[in-house]
Amino acid sequence: MSALAERVFAGDARGVARAISLIEDESPAGAELVRAIYPRTGRAYLVGVTGPPGAGKSTLVDRMTTEWRKAGQTVGIVAVDPTSPFSGGAILGDRVRMGAHFGDEGVFIRSMATRGHLGGLARATSDAALVLDAAGKDVVIIETVGVGQDEVDIVRTADISIVVLVPGAGDEVQALKAGIMEIADIFVVNKADRDGADRLVQSVAAMLALQTFQPDDWRPPIVKTEATTGTGVPEVIESIGTFRAHSEATRAARRRTRQEYRLRDLLSHRFMQLVEQTLPAGELQRVVDGIASREVDPYSAAADIMNRVRGAGPAESRIPVEGGPAKP
Amino acid sequence: MSALAERVFAGDARGVARAISLIEDESPAGAELVRAIYPRTGRAYLVGVTGPPGAGKSTLVDRMTTEWRKAGQTVGIVAVDPTSPFSGGAILGDRVRMGAHFGDEGVFIRSMATRGHLGGLARATSDAALVLDAAGKDVVIIETVGVGQDEVDIVRTADISIVVLVPGAGDEVQALKAGIMEIADIFVVNKADRDGADRLVQSVAAMLALQTFQPDDWRPPIVKTEATTGTGVPEVIESIGTFRAHSEATRAARRRTRQEYRLRDLLSHRFMQLVEQTLPAGELQRVVDGIASREVDPYSAAADIMNRVRGAGPAESRIPVEGGPAKP
Repeated sequence: MSALAERVFAGDARGVARAISLIEDESPAGAELVRAIYPRTGRAYLVGVTGPPGAGKSTLVDRMTTEWRKAGQTVGIVAVDPTSPFSGGAILGDRVRMGAHFGDEGVFIRSMATRGHLGGLARATSDAALVLDAAGKDVVIIETVGVGQDEVDIVRTADISIVVLVPGAGDEVQALKAGIMEIADIFVVNKADRDGADRLVQSVAAMLALQTFQPDDWRPPIVKTEATTGTGVPEVIESIGTFRAHSEATRAARRRTRQEYRLRDLLSHRFMQLVEQTLPAGELQRVVDGIASREVDPYSAAADIMNRVRGAGPAESRIPVEGGPAKP
Repeated sequence: MSALAERVFAGDARGVARAISLIEDESPAGAELVRAIYPRTGRAYLVGVTGPPGAGKSTLVDRMTTEWRKAGQTVGIVAVDPTSPFSGGAILGDRVRMGAHFGDEGVFIRSMATRGHLGGLARATSDAALVLDAAGKDVVIIETVGVGQDEVDIVRTADISIVVLVPGAGDEVQALKAGIMEIADIFVVNKADRDGADRLVQSVAAMLALQTFQPDDWRPPIVKTEATTGTGVPEVIESIGTFRAHSEATRAARRRTRQEYRLRDLLSHRFMQLVEQTLPAGELQRVVDGIASREVDPYSAAADIMNRVRGAGPAESRIPVEGGPAKP
């Protein structure tokens, strides 16, 4: 494991890929790796990019990467891709996504597909970003389809959140409804050559005008881009730099929020593993049967299981092994 | 509490509204109420309706309700509305939504807004459906914007899941990307008078053609509607009836999945409450500080907290009070 951590620290692409795979598998080895690399994280600037499907996020991220590379910055990208079984998965995604950056060791791209519940994906995404951070990437971009609360949560705890919108029928409503407007530090109106781009800019501006800003508050700029040609992308990078300088003082608080969110999620997850280890085989299923047949209600059943897990023996012997040795 | 449960059983609209408010507040009284009504649930047919914003879901649900009312069925509706701070919330939503059904005691509509993390909303939605079930509604519709995993989870465990699509640029991609295609028991192509409706029907059919169906498998039909005029809505109701008959044998298994999902979620939630009760005030924050300063990694911190919570004393005295008396 420490050998793999060393490869990550050296920025070795295969080592990084292997590390992220361990994490994606939610294996104990993945947790062990995060443990090993954690002290060497916290240096990368974490950029969240979200927006509705079809907004051109991946093209924009690609162009932003080109700009950062020109400026000598290394870039890691975690693209969260909630793929349906119909669409064939993200297997070829990384290679396709590399595109112009293929062969550039200063760029690492990883697509993460949904596996089971998205909670697992949020955990894996967060840990994958730590790997890219430990691998020395200056900027780590997390790109998600920002339409559900969990996906928004992935992005909102980044150092900066960029919301990408696109002109078109119903998009304003879509952005509103999905609750992603409030998390934007920068709005990007992509495909700005399309009809309705100015109207979209105006409606975002109108919504911002409804907000109360204090004199020192950051006011999210609205940047128009055509990601396919690169128009406007330098302005996005410039806005990110301005925000970064502006938010110097509040960045620590934001990272703290991210870490708290992560810790709470991990605790819930560990507890469920403990429940499954503590109850006899098939017991959880029997409880569910009892709920299904209305013999017991879910709240009483949960209280009962809580008691059984907590009374199940010495604490030390019951902690999931991948949690590793607990601090005294 | 039992008085309120009695009002729910009697189908009293104010009692139902009060019960759902208790649940929405995540108060101990809400859990107590679910406990009281739970034995009288399981009779309603639970219909999940999801789709992208702007697909016309609420109009469709309204028309479906009219059809069911004509057939003498009572209908409860839980409309999940992940409202952004900009949009003003769902305060007036219920009244607006009642529309044609205003004054009809056979219809109850409740909009649920996002409060905090969506996990809480999924719990509240599920419990609100139980209240409408206990109140004797024959059909309970849960309507969500089906774009994020949590929202999809709300709908996928209903007795039937209806995915509403709408013709328009990028919508096919949108449906695909959001991963909602695989959960559909019925596809509705709404606003079927629009350009591109037939193309959308064909692309959904083409995706279905890629799936392998066993002879007895349900093949999701694609129904075209114009919800604003009601065209096609009787066909939707008919398809629901056909699915209901077809899935008689598998319904119990699906409900079991729903109950297991609910139990797991409740356990995680209860455990986090226990963590907050067990640790001294401010301790969780100090742990987060330690993670932020890289003194400890999240996995070790989680293992440590697990140990402390589990070793914190007799199980009985530590169970959250709203869990109620545990079974021996």
